Amino acid sequence: MTAIAYLGTGLLGSGFVEAALGRGDSVTVWNRTREKAEALAALGATVADTPANAVRGAERVHLVLKDDEVVEEIVAALRPGLGANAIICDHTTTQPALTAERAQRLNAQGVHYLHCPVFIGPAAARLAQGIIMASGPEALFAQVKPALEQQAQKVVYWGERSDLAAAYKLMGNAFIIGLGALVSDVFTLAAGSDVSPADSLKLLEFFNPGTMLQNRGKKMSEGDFAASFELTMARKDLRLMLETAGARPLAALPSIAARMDEVIAQGHGAEDFGVIARDAVTAARVP
Amino acid sequence: MTAIAYLGTGLLGSGFVEAALGRGDSVTVWNRTREKAEALAALGATVADTPANAVRGAERVHLVLKDDEVVEEIVAALRPGLGANAIICDHTTTQPALTAERAQRLNAQGVHYLHCPVFIGPAAARLAQGIIMASGPEALFAQVKPALEQQAQKVVYWGERSDLAAAYKLMGNAFIIGLGALVSDVFTLAAGSDVSPADSLKLLEFFNPGTMLQNRGKKMSEGDFAASFELTMARKDLRLMLETAGARPLAALPSIAARMDEVIAQGHGAEDFGVIARDAVTAARVP
Repeated sequence: MTAIAYLGTGLLGSGFVEAALGRGDSVTVWNRTREKAEALAALGATVADTPANAVRGAERVHLVLKDDEVVEEIVAALRPGLGANAIICDHTTTQPALTAERAQRLNAQGVHYLHCPVFIGPAAARLAQGIIMASGPEALFAQVKPALEQQAQKVVYWGERSDLAAAYKLMGNAFIIGLGALVSDVFTLAAGSDVSPADSLKLLEFFNPGTMLQNRGKKMSEGDFAASFELTMARKDLRLMLETAGARPLAALPSIAARMDEVIAQGHGAEDFGVIARDAVTAARVP
Repeated sequence: MTAIAYLGTGLLGSGFVEAALGRGDSVTVWNRTREKAEALAALGATVADTPANAVRGAERVHLVLKDDEVVEEIVAALRPGLGANAIICDHTTTQPALTAERAQRLNAQGVHYLHCPVFIGPAAARLAQGIIMASGPEALFAQVKPALEQQAQKVVYWGERSDLAAAYKLMGNAFIIGLGALVSDVFTLAAGSDVSPADSLKLLEFFNPGTMLQNRGKKMSEGDFAASFELTMARKDLRLMLETAGARPLAALPSIAARMDEVIAQGHGAEDFGVIARDAVTAARVP
């Protein structure tokens, strides 16, 4: 029976705690709003009144918090109770640069801190599905790897660079949030054309967005902007979309149109619309 | 040997003409910039000097033009040469409302006009791959269906409502353009974290964007906004993305952030981030 602590029992943290209790771990929980932690007591968790008391005697400490600021605050608060060999697995989605600074500072102070952000929703957490990523000291990762593998379907280690897991997490969430925003915008165009949201999703029977992302992404990543779908034509289609949406609010499309205008003004209208990525690709290519 | 005409021989039109010539059709072409049409003469196309001369004697007339305004202009210009039984297949991406008005007006005047927009790139057009959609008079569709089936892998007929193919085309392009914009933004975040564009695409090995779109889309289309990924948390991640991008230009993310702020201000921060689609879904549900 492993003694672990969970700090932060919102939607995702609670899912992880339920799964850990199901595996027979001894779990102590702490949450700023105590009611969210109390709900887990019925399932067998011990509720602590402070972060320091929550981590006392735990061999692993899991953080599922809001952002860098909260992580800093809670790490400071838990340290009086933290055992010398305990490892902090921080699942919080944080800023890459701040994460690197924090990891280096804490590791230099002898605190075993590993950033382990996840692509896991609350329901998936309960079923130990989804992906955990990690980056930072390999020795720490090796120690917690078996535990992380119980917690998710797949564990990806990005190496020693302590900001990499945070960077990939943000890039992944850009895809996830962006896909949701595209669905929203398609519903808005559907509303503007008197098509039901459910009917508009029939389009997905024809598309393979994964293949599309990979093919177009590869071409763009190589700086190949030879026109297949000209930027000016794509911008024209954006105009038709904005007209069709009318006064209805859109999510992703308005700033895509603005970015296209910018790149057209720079003289790239006859290239493929993937050329909107030129600044990012160029930045990566110039040493 | 079928006599057909292609008006508009840009990237896509030229691809279609090459495929038609390969099938042994007799193709007359016209393009505003004559050089683009001349390039097809070497492959066996006849170049006409006016739209009316291009369509004289043709049993099918294909339009691959820029937008509604150009379609109106070219249809007016070609009519003196148009045979009584000739069918116009308009592949142009146009505005649904204007398309409906045009189709009804032309059909009432005895012009056989069918809107047939496509999800086909220039390379795919040469290989008769991709999808052609159509909507409008079923009798017209039945007549051109065999020809359209030679032109693409899949032909989808949306029914008599003459704006539907245009509506689905715009919704589909919102996905296509949006996916490209997301790739661009992921590259920008990668640049901000010193990750190469190619490395950032490794994320796509873990994701199945098609399944993700379908699952989240279905939930959103049903107006189910129970939190799996809270809007306020998604908005926080957006902030981290904007910070990571720094001064680098982004495509889709800025207006997604603005839309989230709007919906949070309306009191929906604790719901799933899919709630950004609430206006569109509500519009569709209220009779």
